[in-house]
Amino acid sequence: MQQVRYHVVRSQGLFDVDNTTLLDGCADAPMAAGERRLVVVDSAVDALHGDRIRTWFDAHDVAATIVALRADEEVKQWDSVSAVIDAMNAFGIDRRREPVLAVGGGVLTDVVGFAASLYRRGTPYLRIPTTLIGLVDAGVGVKTGVNYAAGKNRVGTYAAAKATFLDRTWLSTLDPRHVSNGLAEVLKVALMKSAELFELLERSGRDLLEDRLLGSTPELDAAAATVVAESIHLMLEELQPNLWESTLERCVDYGHTFSPVIEMRALPSLLHGEAVAVDMALTTVIGELRGYVSIEQSARVLAVMRQLGLPTWDDVLAEPGLLASALRDTVRHRDGQQRLPLPVGIGGHRFVNDVTDAELQRALELLRSRSRDHAQETR
Amino acid sequence: MQQVRYHVVRSQGLFDVDNTTLLDGCADAPMAAGERRLVVVDSAVDALHGDRIRTWFDAHDVAATIVALRADEEVKQWDSVSAVIDAMNAFGIDRRREPVLAVGGGVLTDVVGFAASLYRRGTPYLRIPTTLIGLVDAGVGVKTGVNYAAGKNRVGTYAAAKATFLDRTWLSTLDPRHVSNGLAEVLKVALMKSAELFELLERSGRDLLEDRLLGSTPELDAAAATVVAESIHLMLEELQPNLWESTLERCVDYGHTFSPVIEMRALPSLLHGEAVAVDMALTTVIGELRGYVSIEQSARVLAVMRQLGLPTWDDVLAEPGLLASALRDTVRHRDGQQRLPLPVGIGGHRFVNDVTDAELQRALELLRSRSRDHAQETR
Ligand SMILES: NC(=O)c1ccc[n+]([C@@H]2O[C@H](COP(=O)([O-])OP(=O)(O)OC[C@H]3O[C@@H](n4cnc5c(N)ncnc54)[C@H](O)[C@@H]3O)[C@@H](O)[C@H]2O)c1
Ligand SMILES: NC(=O)c1ccc[n+]([C@@H]2O[C@H](COP(=O)([O-])OP(=O)(O)OC[C@H]3O[C@@H](n4cnc5c(N)ncnc54)[C@H](O)[C@@H]3O)[C@@H](O)[C@H]2O)c1
Repeated sequence: MQQVRYHVVRSQGLFDVDNTTLLDGCADAPMAAGERRLVVVDSAVDALHGDRIRTWFDAHDVAATIVALRADEEVKQWDSVSAVIDAMNAFGIDRRREPVLAVGGGVLTDVVGFAASLYRRGTPYLRIPTTLIGLVDAGVGVKTGVNYAAGKNRVGTYAAAKATFLDRTWLSTLDPRHVSNGLAEVLKVALMKSAELFELLERSGRDLLEDRLLGSTPELDAAAATVVAESIHLMLEELQPNLWESTLERCVDYGHTFSPVIEMRALPSLLHGEAVAVDMALTTVIGELRGYVSIEQSARVLAVMRQLGLPTWDDVLAEPGLLASALRDTVRHRDGQQRLPLPVGIGGHRFVNDVTDAELQRALELLRSRSRDHAQETR
Repeated sequence: MQQVRYHVVRSQGLFDVDNTTLLDGCADAPMAAGERRLVVVDSAVDALHGDRIRTWFDAHDVAATIVALRADEEVKQWDSVSAVIDAMNAFGIDRRREPVLAVGGGVLTDVVGFAASLYRRGTPYLRIPTTLIGLVDAGVGVKTGVNYAAGKNRVGTYAAAKATFLDRTWLSTLDPRHVSNGLAEVLKVALMKSAELFELLERSGRDLLEDRLLGSTPELDAAAATVVAESIHLMLEELQPNLWESTLERCVDYGHTFSPVIEMRALPSLLHGEAVAVDMALTTVIGELRGYVSIEQSARVLAVMRQLGLPTWDDVLAEPGLLASALRDTVRHRDGQQRLPLPVGIGGHRFVNDVTDAELQRALELLRSRSRDHAQETR
């Protein structure tokens, strides 16, 4: 039996010089003056926040070896893992007592988590997500990995970080498109599990996006805090009884049936959350065709996607054979069955195994015409 | 909680055409006519046994895609893992229902096990070890991995095969040096845990080696069966309560304190078991200097090593700083302590944390003179 324990610790401004959360915020992963740490930082984050980070470590007398690593979907490959392993070798890391810190977006934390999980068959690591996807999704799961050939996250491990430190202030420098990208994962759990969260996005999504969830007014702050906390809560509720995916019917897989192939095919033009949004648009329309979702509900879903700055269509969708082959690959991933989560109303779901090519084509055409109509309206 | 279950199934002549063990020998990993399998075979094994293997699959109507892979210590690197992942991609393997078969020595099974454990974060695999190390050690553990830079097994995972099929008849084509190599791991568990097994090696080791454990006479067959069964039994007794090495005091780490550095430094001139033997010779002498092992016992141990065709000395040992740096790296691997298993008499052990450089030097000199004396005697 293997037991897993991991912590999610919240704090604003982790690298404000008087913030001590990283030292004593997690009893299972303490850090003290006089110690040393390997810190792998997304190079974009290093460029923007590196000085603050270095100042913090100096002020707290922790000898940080800071390694900046380019981290975005195009380099989410074994070579990046290898670079982290090289850094661990050069640092001469201790197997159990010197957790590696991973500071960056989902790519960086997936890559560093992967490397740490392999190094000496398991070296502890801590995550400090700096993107919204990281805060609400990549940062709180137990998956690591990289892409391989055309396969999205084709290789990886289940390896929980000892702790994840959540801090919304990173988002101040994040490109708005990447905020939208993170809101896609929020929308995903909302659609599957929470009409309340969906309604909050419907009401405040556009403002939250504009504010980058920084909480510039008390109302926006409350809404942003709720969005992050609720997404994580709903996500963990699903993940915890099923950490190793012994059950392959996972509603958090919503939006992830076709998106792996869409994302890799469109790379670099679609971000992860954008590909997820396109998948959700398609499956919402499938739900509509089946009568699981009303026409009005389906329209609300697509409208919220647009408010969140997410696409509901991409021409890649219409490539002959693409959806069918994506579904085939997902079936391989889900043990020979589709196990496709579909929305039921808003905030509910069911799993189906009988989606056909013809149904995919009908949904595709319907979604295409909806997207065309919308494009004309807004012209 | 994650539960692990794996099976060790014995059968002689697995690919004899009427042997059905691979079909129905393990209830958890059945294989049936009409199915297909990806089979990764050590290319040396393929050259010698490939026809038999193909004939067997044809006869049982299993569509085998056989991929031959060079597998020896020099190519125990990520590139080999990558080749297996490519084969899994090309095969379009199903995530949970089409276990990959790994047929080969410890390198092949470590590499394929590693690839399978990463592919879609875990695809089942079966092991068919074809070397003695595979039969008594690599084939029954839960570790996978490859070397990285100068680091022996520096990256890897804990991932049990669904089942391992043990068959001594493979050894008929194994180079005797590789039989000796496997006997080193047998000697390891004997020295730590079983005076009886040691005495069996002392009595019959040389004959077993000559016979490659094939059991050409009833007596030799009984001895060979006991050697394999007892090694596995003693090994599993240690492994099972500690699958993820939550305890780092592992007596099966005996011979593996200095050997990782010795092996990688001497590569390709020393085999894994040979490096382990040299480590055991050194630590036996340390035990002798400390009075844990009598002079007579120490001499018996070195004599058995020679009978098994194993080295008790390698000039790499004397490279300045090598032993100290090996110990430093092991300390990193064992959470900041030496946790060095030393023999106590024959068949017993204790863990120590206080080996000094000076002690290492004394042991080195003593071992060197013993080896010189022996070389002169036998000239
Ligand atoms: N492990 C999981 O459970 C899990 C869950 C969801 C997503 N993911 C993975 O996460 C990845 C997507 O993560 P992402 O959206 O964070 O992408 P990302 O890591 O590529 O980051 C997006 C971009 O923003 C930059 N960046 C990061 N933080 C910044 C900041 N504070 N200010 C300015 N720029 C910053 C990055 O350099 C990058 O260019 C995908 O590969 C996806 O597979 C993993
Ligand atoms: N995972 C574990 O728990 C574990 C335990 C012990 C050792 N190991 C690893 O195992 C490796 C050593 O294994 P090994 O000694 O089997 O070495 P190996 O896999 O390199 O095999 C030895 C040689 O014999 C050849 N060969 C294999 N089977 C043959 C056969 N039946 N006939 C003729 N030739 C054959 C191989 O091609 C190779 O050249 C090391 O890398 C070691 O780290 C792993």
